[in-house]
Amino acid sequence: MPLAAAIRTIPDYPKKGILFRDITTLLGDAKAFRKAVDELVQPWCGGKIDKVAGMEARGFILGGAVAHQLSAGFIPIRKKGKLPHRVVSVAYELEYGVDEMEMHEDAVSPGERVILVDDLIATGGTAEGAVKLLRQGGADVVAACFVIDLPDLAGVKRLQALGVPVRTLVAFAGH
Amino acid sequence: MPLAAAIRTIPDYPKKGILFRDITTLLGDAKAFRKAVDELVQPWCGGKIDKVAGMEARGFILGGAVAHQLSAGFIPIRKKGKLPHRVVSVAYELEYGVDEMEMHEDAVSPGERVILVDDLIATGGTAEGAVKLLRQGGADVVAACFVIDLPDLAGVKRLQALGVPVRTLVAFAGH
Repeated sequence: MPLAAAIRTIPDYPKKGILFRDITTLLGDAKAFRKAVDELVQPWCGGKIDKVAGMEARGFILGGAVAHQLSAGFIPIRKKGKLPHRVVSVAYELEYGVDEMEMHEDAVSPGERVILVDDLIATGGTAEGAVKLLRQGGADVVAACFVIDLPDLAGVKRLQALGVPVRTLVAFAGH
Repeated sequence: MPLAAAIRTIPDYPKKGILFRDITTLLGDAKAFRKAVDELVQPWCGGKIDKVAGMEARGFILGGAVAHQLSAGFIPIRKKGKLPHRVVSVAYELEYGVDEMEMHEDAVSPGERVILVDDLIATGGTAEGAVKLLRQGGADVVAACFVIDLPDLAGVKRLQALGVPVRTLVAFAGH
């Protein structure tokens, strides 16, 4: 089964006119979940990846699985005020206004090879913030991987402009 | 290295007198993360597990990895209002007051064998809520697995009283 068929579309969520792509049906399908993880990491299976970074909250699910698959460590990137130790933080834009995301300041060491993982890339605002945090810690951001791409929102191009190779598995046009 | 040594203790967080057990240092250590996942699932490696349920947010990291390790699907159990489709919900107690957690109503099918995963069990209030949600969907909750146990708060006994076998890897007394 193609991965796209395992993703549920919910009309008018979170507001009228939006088609929400719901990855929980893919995650709940053992075969689709495994296929997504395998395809996400396929280019890096032979190489050395030190850590996988995932963004709260859905990025934790895929990120945890990808880190396990690659025998890498995991770095949580969280919303403001959720991490217990000293953090570095970066502002990122929301639809209206800005917020901050944080990472433990000792989460990454200079030169470590890191892959960023999330379920979906839209405008790329949060992913860009995560790349900045990781680079602030000295990481080599080897790639950013997303199951779902909304290409009309051009997030992939935004990350590529930062020099980050991007891998996506399923594209939904029309946004 | 024993797993306990990979867990950082932060004094006076989130408030004075609390020793916070910070699992992010374990997750960031590739060998410790893999060891924790392997040891958590060791009793079920031979048997059939349909799905792994994880609780927002840290439970998503370990739960995603455990689901991948067991080739199972993943069920997110989230705070109120975060899931996009129809949900079932249950109240659970906080230190002061109550809150609700939710699961998609189609996340589990009757008779499916499910393991619940989280990073830490304290009083067991959230885990008890998750067990209730899973059973409401007809799941057979085969086990609940936690890396860290705070035995003085007796959460393990609380789950065992519900008839759920519990597996924990590291105990910190003194709470």
